[in-house]
Amino acid sequence: MNDTLTLTGVVATDPQARTTTSGIPMTSFRLASSQRRFDRAAGRWIDGDTNWYSVTAFRHLGTNAGRSLVKGDRVVVVGRLKIRRWEQAERSGSSVDLEADTIGHDLSWGTSVYSRVRPTSA
Amino acid sequence: MNDTLTLTGVVATDPQARTTTSGIPMTSFRLASSQRRFDRAAGRWIDGDTNWYSVTAFRHLGTNAGRSLVKGDRVVVVGRLKIRRWEQAERSGSSVDLEADTIGHDLSWGTSVYSRVRPTSA
Amino acid sequence: MNDTLTLTGVVATDPQARTTTSGIPMTSFRLASSQRRFDRAAGRWIDGDTNWYSVTAFRHLGTNAGRSLVKGDRVVVVGRLKIRRWEQAERSGSSVDLEADTIGHDLSWGTSVYSRVRPTSA
Amino acid sequence: MNDTLTLTGVVATDPQARTTTSGIPMTSFRLASSQRRFDRAAGRWIDGDTNWYSVTAFRHLGTNAGRSLVKGDRVVVVGRLKIRRWEQAERSGSSVDLEADTIGHDLSWGTSVYSRVRPTSA
Repeated sequence: MNDTLTLTGVVATDPQARTTTSGIPMTSFRLASSQRRFDRAAGRWIDGDTNWYSVTAFRHLGTNAGRSLVKGDRVVVVGRLKIRRWEQAERSGSSVDLEADTIGHDLSWGTSVYSRVRPTSA
Repeated sequence: MNDTLTLTGVVATDPQARTTTSGIPMTSFRLASSQRRFDRAAGRWIDGDTNWYSVTAFRHLGTNAGRSLVKGDRVVVVGRLKIRRWEQAERSGSSVDLEADTIGHDLSWGTSVYSRVRPTSA
Repeated sequence: MNDTLTLTGVVATDPQARTTTSGIPMTSFRLASSQRRFDRAAGRWIDGDTNWYSVTAFRHLGTNAGRSLVKGDRVVVVGRLKIRRWEQAERSGSSVDLEADTIGHDLSWGTSVYSRVRPTSA
Repeated sequence: MNDTLTLTGVVATDPQARTTTSGIPMTSFRLASSQRRFDRAAGRWIDGDTNWYSVTAFRHLGTNAGRSLVKGDRVVVVGRLKIRRWEQAERSGSSVDLEADTIGHDLSWGTSVYSRVRPTSA
């Protein structure tokens, strides 16, 4: 349960596919997730703030995400949140990472053609 | 929050696309969701029980799901749970429906080619 | 992730505390969870349907829930959904159980005085 | 759905109760949430990293949380994540806030005595 988050949003950067030093495939990208909220005064739904996440996917999910995702795609992402404090010289802050458990193209906004991949390695 | 559920599983029946009497496109299918649990005695993850859900998607999501999903596909589904008591002659029980907010092909198990659809109606 | 659900609702039956045959403390009760939904035509939130769950808690959570919960209490429950098909003579249906990972009194509706319990057994 | 998170953790600072300039009661505190993860090599669960959140509760929940929560309490919190970029002189970073929808004392770690509060104002 803890820190597991389901998000929908837009792939906001070109996904970067690479291999970790220990040989594990991974893909990362920035996700922009906008919250819709109900404005009681106005009596209607309005756009809320946008949250930005650094999403990382490993192993099969990393490989397939790298082959499937394009900047601008609408996706649903389930993952575990990692909030890291950092300090560097005069600067400090938090980075917000999401390690993905699963990712899919959001069918609310488009259609997708799916090909199952037979696991061979990794 | 309430009764909103994120699931991964297998599309277990051919998705049925149709139009409601009020003209809204909808698609429905059965979803089989297996839980993995950690067996402390055995010291490893094992397959748990399978939950079965009747998933329904409306409007754009209904249209796109009908065009994209095939029996056997691995998907991620986010939706609101509806548990209904029913009684009929000597029989009674509960049905468990999930009204989908979003659906996507699960990239942990395959790749997908996505096409954004420009909303025109519905 | 899978089948994990966060609910708020009302403890609808007197919680039953007992011990399993293998000596594990457990408490069970029925939970009524009402969904609020936004009625676009009316332009306001209305009460939706009520979902009923059989909630079970084991070990420390089972012991503490049995000592803390009273019928009528407003609670938040996080747990894993178990949907079971049953058939019996001419009857069949599904039961919907929630095995709780955590339970708390909902502070949106009241105040609570908390006592940490030092684990001694179970 | 979007950005809604369920957390369990420890109230890590004395809760601060106050009233907003528009007269709404609110309470805020820091929450430390530790992730447990399964170490495949070691074959057992270990403590993972700790995420820190600034939790804020408004209205009745704010009032009741201020009266009920004490530093050190174990709680379950459901809320919406707000990630804010900030820049100030030479510094920049992200703050991670959680606006609570509900909070409860975690009965996995203790017992609680609950008093329903009849809404009178706010």
